[in-house]
Amino acid sequence: MKNEYVDIDTLKFLLFNVHQIENLLSKDRFKEYDKTSIDIFIDSVKSFSDTSLYPFIKDMDDKPSYFKDGNIHVHPQFENILKNAGEMGLVGAMYDFDDGGMQLPSTIFHAAYFIMEAANNHVPGYLGLTAGSANLILSYGNQKLKDTYVPNMIDLSWGGTMCLTEPQAGSSLSDITTLASPTDDDYYLIKGQKIFISAGDHQFSSNFVHLVLARIKGAPSGTKGVSLFVVPKNRPNDHGGFIHNDTEVAGEFEKMGQKGYCTTHLVFGDHDDCRGWIVGEPNQGLFYMFQMMNEARIATGRMGTAIASAAYFSSLKYANERPQGRKLNNSGQKNVEEEQTLIINHPDIKRLLFSQKAIIEGSLSLILETANYVDKEMTSDDDKEKSDYNLLLELLTPIAKTYPAEQGINSTSHAIQILGGYGFCTDFMPQQYYRDIRIIAIYEGTTGIQSLDLLGRKITQKNGKALELLATEIQQTIATANCHNELQPFADILLDNLGLVKKVISILMPHAIKGNYEHFLADASVFMEFFGTIVIGWQWLKIATTASTMLENSNGNQPKEFYNSKIHTMKFFYTYELVKTSGLAKTLMNTEELTISGAKDLF
Amino acid sequence: MKNEYVDIDTLKFLLFNVHQIENLLSKDRFKEYDKTSIDIFIDSVKSFSDTSLYPFIKDMDDKPSYFKDGNIHVHPQFENILKNAGEMGLVGAMYDFDDGGMQLPSTIFHAAYFIMEAANNHVPGYLGLTAGSANLILSYGNQKLKDTYVPNMIDLSWGGTMCLTEPQAGSSLSDITTLASPTDDDYYLIKGQKIFISAGDHQFSSNFVHLVLARIKGAPSGTKGVSLFVVPKNRPNDHGGFIHNDTEVAGEFEKMGQKGYCTTHLVFGDHDDCRGWIVGEPNQGLFYMFQMMNEARIATGRMGTAIASAAYFSSLKYANERPQGRKLNNSGQKNVEEEQTLIINHPDIKRLLFSQKAIIEGSLSLILETANYVDKEMTSDDDKEKSDYNLLLELLTPIAKTYPAEQGINSTSHAIQILGGYGFCTDFMPQQYYRDIRIIAIYEGTTGIQSLDLLGRKITQKNGKALELLATEIQQTIATANCHNELQPFADILLDNLGLVKKVISILMPHAIKGNYEHFLADASVFMEFFGTIVIGWQWLKIATTASTMLENSNGNQPKEFYNSKIHTMKFFYTYELVKTSGLAKTLMNTEELTISGAKDLF
Repeated sequence: MKNEYVDIDTLKFLLFNVHQIENLLSKDRFKEYDKTSIDIFIDSVKSFSDTSLYPFIKDMDDKPSYFKDGNIHVHPQFENILKNAGEMGLVGAMYDFDDGGMQLPSTIFHAAYFIMEAANNHVPGYLGLTAGSANLILSYGNQKLKDTYVPNMIDLSWGGTMCLTEPQAGSSLSDITTLASPTDDDYYLIKGQKIFISAGDHQFSSNFVHLVLARIKGAPSGTKGVSLFVVPKNRPNDHGGFIHNDTEVAGEFEKMGQKGYCTTHLVFGDHDDCRGWIVGEPNQGLFYMFQMMNEARIATGRMGTAIASAAYFSSLKYANERPQGRKLNNSGQKNVEEEQTLIINHPDIKRLLFSQKAIIEGSLSLILETANYVDKEMTSDDDKEKSDYNLLLELLTPIAKTYPAEQGINSTSHAIQILGGYGFCTDFMPQQYYRDIRIIAIYEGTTGIQSLDLLGRKITQKNGKALELLATEIQQTIATANCHNELQPFADILLDNLGLVKKVISILMPHAIKGNYEHFLADASVFMEFFGTIVIGWQWLKIATTASTMLENSNGNQPKEFYNSKIHTMKFFYTYELVKTSGLAKTLMNTEELTISGAKDLF
Repeated sequence: MKNEYVDIDTLKFLLFNVHQIENLLSKDRFKEYDKTSIDIFIDSVKSFSDTSLYPFIKDMDDKPSYFKDGNIHVHPQFENILKNAGEMGLVGAMYDFDDGGMQLPSTIFHAAYFIMEAANNHVPGYLGLTAGSANLILSYGNQKLKDTYVPNMIDLSWGGTMCLTEPQAGSSLSDITTLASPTDDDYYLIKGQKIFISAGDHQFSSNFVHLVLARIKGAPSGTKGVSLFVVPKNRPNDHGGFIHNDTEVAGEFEKMGQKGYCTTHLVFGDHDDCRGWIVGEPNQGLFYMFQMMNEARIATGRMGTAIASAAYFSSLKYANERPQGRKLNNSGQKNVEEEQTLIINHPDIKRLLFSQKAIIEGSLSLILETANYVDKEMTSDDDKEKSDYNLLLELLTPIAKTYPAEQGINSTSHAIQILGGYGFCTDFMPQQYYRDIRIIAIYEGTTGIQSLDLLGRKITQKNGKALELLATEIQQTIATANCHNELQPFADILLDNLGLVKKVISILMPHAIKGNYEHFLADASVFMEFFGTIVIGWQWLKIATTASTMLENSNGNQPKEFYNSKIHTMKFFYTYELVKTSGLAKTLMNTEELTISGAKDLF
């Protein structure tokens, strides 16, 4: 199945050439792997996706997960998927060998999940949330928790979830009210409700391990009083078996997309017999949860990129097969005696295709870059280097979540447009991807939340140290690009944009310093779009520079057209997307406070 | 029902104050009407929409129209709707009194349909297509056609359709192959297939009158050989009754949205007994059809605006009711002991609301402006004036179709975002509007087609005369705005943008003159976004100037806040939307030919 939903050649080019992950493989932690074994792993995931995931994407939309008699029922193919994914070790792919994992780099983990999500975005969340929650137990749980839960999660006989959102609190984690009452034993009694819990229940896992944020009786208010608990659906009894732990599925949220990926409403302790075991220390729950949350944010951006990839290839196939219209001659007329041309030959269709390609490959490159910082931080022996990588990771995470979400939505919309009327019909896939991807800008912190995180925390932390580090990285890319004549004009544009970032921040920062945080952050989402576009511009220059070098050295394993297309798409991104930053900067530097000064009666 | 889906106060302000339709009512054609009678008519449409349309919007999504045993079945509520709408005269609202119509201005017709579409966008197409096709018969059909069909259409006992698209041709009307073979009688025998025929059949109309584009045997190739025919589902027999006319419904297209609005596949003459009666002269079909097509394009933009309006009010209601999070204090912290604030108090939520309001009211104003040119052309006694109004109408039509489509999609997406996770759930309306509105950028010529029309035909026609006329109109608005201190800076921005339009065209036009039409038109869709944004900027300055004048003169019937909100939203549009034109202009002036030079192997 060549490029039905994902371009493996580009994925490998990004991994091995642009992001040079062979450097990682030389580190002690990853010494069991080389390029060949990574290739084999990726190809095996692709093969699994071809046979077990992609053929079921439409059917999962047609037959959504549903709630009946207290249980969630998912598509029958999940039985096969979970069994195989468990056997392939996809949950524990990143874990230490000692924990039963494959000890693969995070970069490779994300590459593998990207393939699976492009094949069928309704599926990998079940694996990914189990991977993330087991990892959280491995990182902060005690030995008993690890022994009891992790092995059953790694092989997917049990599922894992993250339980943050409550009906009255939404994104405001300060307002969590789920209560944990201490007992004389090693557990707490948990009482409360959680909503929007992805992969929260289904018929193919015999147990679920919920990672639940709750407030210990008497804890400080706000996020400082939030603790983290393991709350299993069925808890161990004293005889080596399991009994029901007073957790109930109250319902399933019916959604416009991702219908195969269940979204549950969970009720804990309705009969005052729901036991939870604390992870780590009391009142540190949010800090722990953010390990998983940060992973989930990168994963969400990856999922958005993957959905957009599948939509792109669906529209590309159509554009390559559908004849319609003719090219204009020198008098601006069409010769109707000619055969109709394929629509891929129309500039406007090419524009829609390039736009998708630029968004998708740029986003994928950023996802891999971000994951690469996880690996670099983990494998570095130098404390300063470790800290720098962590700062870069922290800075890029909200962007890696948001750019693919917001622009991925536009990208799938372009896929619909290429199909015209058929794009709106359920016989064709783009409309499903368009429905599926809309949630990506909401999962794991909406675009608004990510943008507050970017501007309010990440840009300002340590006096702007993270931004300084990123600017150095970008300048290095610019310096390398400047060695290629064809790329110089674009390197100049990126440098100008870097200057524009500094200018915008110099205008915004005084508001924060003066204590006018509301003004400072009012346009955080506009800043996200502005800064995110520039970061993707950086990725594209990096991609083009790599392609250009490989063309010059004739040392790539792809045909010339492959590398030329990367350079061409970079130019497209700079000409059609990066030009938007000047307008966004103007908005950011306006002083009218239009979204602050107005009261309710303006609407 | 105040502002559940539409803001009648703003609609009336736009009609009576901004676009001063009382000037129209003084014309002989409309002398039966005054402000009071128009108010009553609008209020009656609102009341009909409240009771018969809005309560069924969700149920029509839940119970889509479907095809069974050769027939289309639509939601049962249509029986009531069609009966009442027919009695209210909504189909013939614009027709002459002599033709059984109400002789209302086009502007009022669009205002009425806007209300109905905001209430339930699955419905008014059934009325609008019947109105358009009956009007086409009135304009170009012979007396026999008028007598046979129009009266039954006006009261909606019969439905009307426009049949252009064929499976092999799509947007390329040159490639229509439906055949019309002359007979010795007054009819032709029709044979062919048409797809995507909206409102093409249902159980509540006893007959359908299809306006079909077909090619008379031996006609010239291309659009020059296309003729227009009335092809009824059931044709009159010799005994005053009706017999089946060999038209079959082959199926219904299952869609992601507008599920109550059926989209049919029609087959004509499968048994060589389908009779069609020519409208007007042979080979003039496309010219005639464009009367209806142009009306339909304005109507499509109106429908997009209406859907976005309903989504906006749905999200505004939520923002006014949902407490979540807190405002930041001077140290950038939240006081978690405080009650949570309503989300409408967060600047990012206000930004999403203002963005919707700016798009919707700006679009609505443009729709009414465009319709107003129809009325002005029709009622003018001066040939030069008539011709000028027609040129302005022609220039604005593709924009009035496209801006509300493309930006309306973004606007409904904002509505989803305001609801967060709930926005993705089918219990809330924004996700339905988001699915419904996606077709608007495809109906009646995709954005790509509209953009070719704008740049390739309308901008260039008569040496740019239409653009010249529009520039004069815009300059008049600027001159009036300059009398208000508060508006001057924005008038200056609009003037700069007018200069930018001229600059962009001066760069593009030489490509056309040199015969490089492919380059000239390659970025037509970007030009559409660029020019459309400026045109909406013009509408907003006009709105703000009217509001400012009424504030100064204290002669409005709305509270001050109403007029202030118009000025505030104008500022928002200029600060957040109009700033985008500089980047778009850069794209338009690039010389790289990135979407022309590349071949298929770039993807």
